[in-house]
Amino acid sequence: MSGPQTPEPALDRQGDCSTGSGDEGAADGIQHSHRMLSFSDALLSIIATVMILPVTHMEITPEQKSDKSVQNLLATRIAVYLMTFLIVTVAWAAHTRLFQIVGKIDDTLALLNLACMMTITFLPFTFSLMVTFPEVPLGIFLFCVCVIAIGAIQALIVVYAFHFPHLLSPQIEGSAHRALHRRHILGIILQGPTLCLAAACFSLFFYPASYLLMATVVFLPYVSKAAGWCRDRLAGSREPPAHSLEFFTFDLHEPLSKERVEAFSDGVYAIVATLLILDICEDNVPDPKEVKAKFGGSLVAALGTSGPQFLAYFGSFVTVGLLWFAHHSLFLHIRKVTRPMGLLNTLSLAFVGGLPLAYQQTSAFEKQSPRELESVRVSCAIIFFASIFQFAIWTTALLQEGETLQPSARFGGREHAFMFAKLALYPCASLLAFASTCILSRFSTAIFHIMQIAVPFAFLLLRLLVRLALAALRALRGLTRPGRTQPAPRAMDDARAPLLPAPC
Amino acid sequence: MSGPQTPEPALDRQGDCSTGSGDEGAADGIQHSHRMLSFSDALLSIIATVMILPVTHMEITPEQKSDKSVQNLLATRIAVYLMTFLIVTVAWAAHTRLFQIVGKIDDTLALLNLACMMTITFLPFTFSLMVTFPEVPLGIFLFCVCVIAIGAIQALIVVYAFHFPHLLSPQIEGSAHRALHRRHILGIILQGPTLCLAAACFSLFFYPASYLLMATVVFLPYVSKAAGWCRDRLAGSREPPAHSLEFFTFDLHEPLSKERVEAFSDGVYAIVATLLILDICEDNVPDPKEVKAKFGGSLVAALGTSGPQFLAYFGSFVTVGLLWFAHHSLFLHIRKVTRPMGLLNTLSLAFVGGLPLAYQQTSAFEKQSPRELESVRVSCAIIFFASIFQFAIWTTALLQEGETLQPSARFGGREHAFMFAKLALYPCASLLAFASTCILSRFSTAIFHIMQIAVPFAFLLLRLLVRLALAALRALRGLTRPGRTQPAPRAMDDARAPLLPAPC
Repeated sequence: MSGPQTPEPALDRQGDCSTGSGDEGAADGIQHSHRMLSFSDALLSIIATVMILPVTHMEITPEQKSDKSVQNLLATRIAVYLMTFLIVTVAWAAHTRLFQIVGKIDDTLALLNLACMMTITFLPFTFSLMVTFPEVPLGIFLFCVCVIAIGAIQALIVVYAFHFPHLLSPQIEGSAHRALHRRHILGIILQGPTLCLAAACFSLFFYPASYLLMATVVFLPYVSKAAGWCRDRLAGSREPPAHSLEFFTFDLHEPLSKERVEAFSDGVYAIVATLLILDICEDNVPDPKEVKAKFGGSLVAALGTSGPQFLAYFGSFVTVGLLWFAHHSLFLHIRKVTRPMGLLNTLSLAFVGGLPLAYQQTSAFEKQSPRELESVRVSCAIIFFASIFQFAIWTTALLQEGETLQPSARFGGREHAFMFAKLALYPCASLLAFASTCILSRFSTAIFHIMQIAVPFAFLLLRLLVRLALAALRALRGLTRPGRTQPAPRAMDDARAPLLPAPC
Repeated sequence: MSGPQTPEPALDRQGDCSTGSGDEGAADGIQHSHRMLSFSDALLSIIATVMILPVTHMEITPEQKSDKSVQNLLATRIAVYLMTFLIVTVAWAAHTRLFQIVGKIDDTLALLNLACMMTITFLPFTFSLMVTFPEVPLGIFLFCVCVIAIGAIQALIVVYAFHFPHLLSPQIEGSAHRALHRRHILGIILQGPTLCLAAACFSLFFYPASYLLMATVVFLPYVSKAAGWCRDRLAGSREPPAHSLEFFTFDLHEPLSKERVEAFSDGVYAIVATLLILDICEDNVPDPKEVKAKFGGSLVAALGTSGPQFLAYFGSFVTVGLLWFAHHSLFLHIRKVTRPMGLLNTLSLAFVGGLPLAYQQTSAFEKQSPRELESVRVSCAIIFFASIFQFAIWTTALLQEGETLQPSARFGGREHAFMFAKLALYPCASLLAFASTCILSRFSTAIFHIMQIAVPFAFLLLRLLVRLALAALRALRGLTRPGRTQPAPRAMDDARAPLLPAPC
């Protein structure tokens, strides 16, 4: 329920003026937490995404394909990736909420935050253990220990910040019943760890119960959010609850910090885009001996054999880049990020994290020709889901457009039709490519590459295309209904824009 | 020569107000470039660092150690890492300079920037080719093509921005001789690509000349900077040149954007800290079959064998985290980043990027016991260089403290002694550990681990220790010179602080 975070002006003042309150604050070791939060966002987004690497690094030869154990291993690794992404996102959301309460940091808080980050980096390992040895309770025990440790550190941060109230956000610092706030916040923070303590105890003698408790811990906020949203939709939008005690909740109406959602998303996009170059550099530099033996010393011929990999790399980078571009354009028009929008953003990012898998699939054409069709379809599906969830963020924002969107992007706004087309481009293109592979299965690779090359140009020409489409619609309407004045009112025209087909 | 960048207040206004100029700008598709720059920083820092992975992923068995070809491969990969780091940092600095000119972006500029990023991601591959096949000119030819492409895209960005002057930074937009500016900027941007065009031509018939030209391209700014700095020191600080035409130069006095230096550094620290967890998850989850066969089904026993790896992981994460913490504290007191400070920061980051190597070295103890001493020393050296360059940033800043530092961190400021101790902690600790391994070579591992565990506590207690040391010094001075008044003036006392030994 706090407004959008605005740490920058203060930070800026501190950077610019030679003397004054900003510097005085720094002198006491008290700092605005802006940079620490960016660093935490970067760390968490990388931890969330990096577990896709074990999935993509699995080399499956055609004869292994039917091997049960290899399939199991692949499924295991994908499960680890998805669970890691989910739990790290939950941890990130909790971290965001915590530092909406704690407005400033000093050295002790910075060190505590680092300890918290270190414990979070250990979570993927516990998942790997859990999924590899589902019948041994050690994995879940370690997971619970980690969650308890994270909860303890977060509780310590809260207690420390309330002990030095100038570290708190101004809203709480000025509040009359600060002690009540503290008890309420500690209660919510320690909910998860308490459940995990029970789960850790259960894991010693009856471990299935601990899996159940763990699932509760992970999904509790999501379930309560979804239920709240449904209730909200059915009962009509009720008044947001009073500020006094529910400042720190799992509540639906509490917006996420837009800046931190952007930073986390940027981290995921950046790591996905660059993980790909690593594979290129590690695998596609030919061995000098092999070049001599196989290609008569011709490096160009040797590189020619890995041509499909390069093509796939550029295609993937372009896709990641343009998905980032769409995300960037979308968030430029968003004023506030509600929790359902945050959840949709997480889902979109989980699929973006899967794009290296799409790269590996499409770059493997040469080796495993019979899997070509399958690979192209998997890639199309990943791109489709990554982009359709972006589109869903937009539609969810439109449901409460007065609160969440800039005026120009609302129904009837100047940018509305353009924004719509921008976000609809990738879902349409990937769906079209998928459909084409069903009809023209022999040309699936060509279709996929044409899509990857055509989409960037479509983005460049999009503004022009949308204007043309709008003008054509207007002209058409003028022809069919000559009784009305020809130049229809602008606002009404734009309001019809969502009905336009996207120009893909 | 532009002042520190201040994009945030404008961005913030845009995010908050429902109507007004901020939103109007967004409606025309014109955006403040803040988020795009953060994304570029994240991408570039990851590209710069990720090439350490091929180095750390090399598995060298003891019998291979004396094999010439393996040693060559390792040296090759380290060379690729260092060259990549250097060239990507040069590209990053050029990008920073470019977007000090171009203040706002629209969709076309965002897409051009993505194209530029994609070309930069391809540079590591050309280096790999060059180093693997030094006698084949294809690698250098591709490198030159990349640099020319990057230059062309940057020139396009400049031409586009000057065509729509509202995209330029206010200083240039309001300037009287904008056309002169444009010619000057294009001239500097196209210097490198022109040299590379010559190098590409040479590579077709006499490739050693192209290596020479390439080295010129890479090191030109550094050499000119170093020469300028020396001249500057010898001749005394001359007046900064007039603003009119040299707004965009390789000049020493032109400060880097502090915000972007921080973002780039954060990216490097974050990726280094998290690359380590990847190794843990990929290599240290035991195979179910092996657990049954070797350890009688006991998972705890199986995990026990990789205990040293976990210890090394936590040690490395703590080291990276605390180096980030020192960097964060340092930049909190810095007001302006000059180019020599930027160069020292780059060197420090290059060694931070080498920390996964230190992790791999120290985690390999169990397997290759005779290399233990060597490993510990390499790790100490990497940590020492990473931290001593941070310390050098601080001393360089002190040389021009009036311009570069906040008042509280200058000689005699309240935070001066504390800052000094904070930055001196890691160099002292690693040097001490290195020296101890020379004397007590049998206990080298124990010494290294004690250092890694002791340093975080030293950081926590640092403020206390510095106060104690200052009080002790004051008391001592009071005893030796009883003629003077006992409580010496505070400012003078602090000015002596650099002479104190750091409490490590």
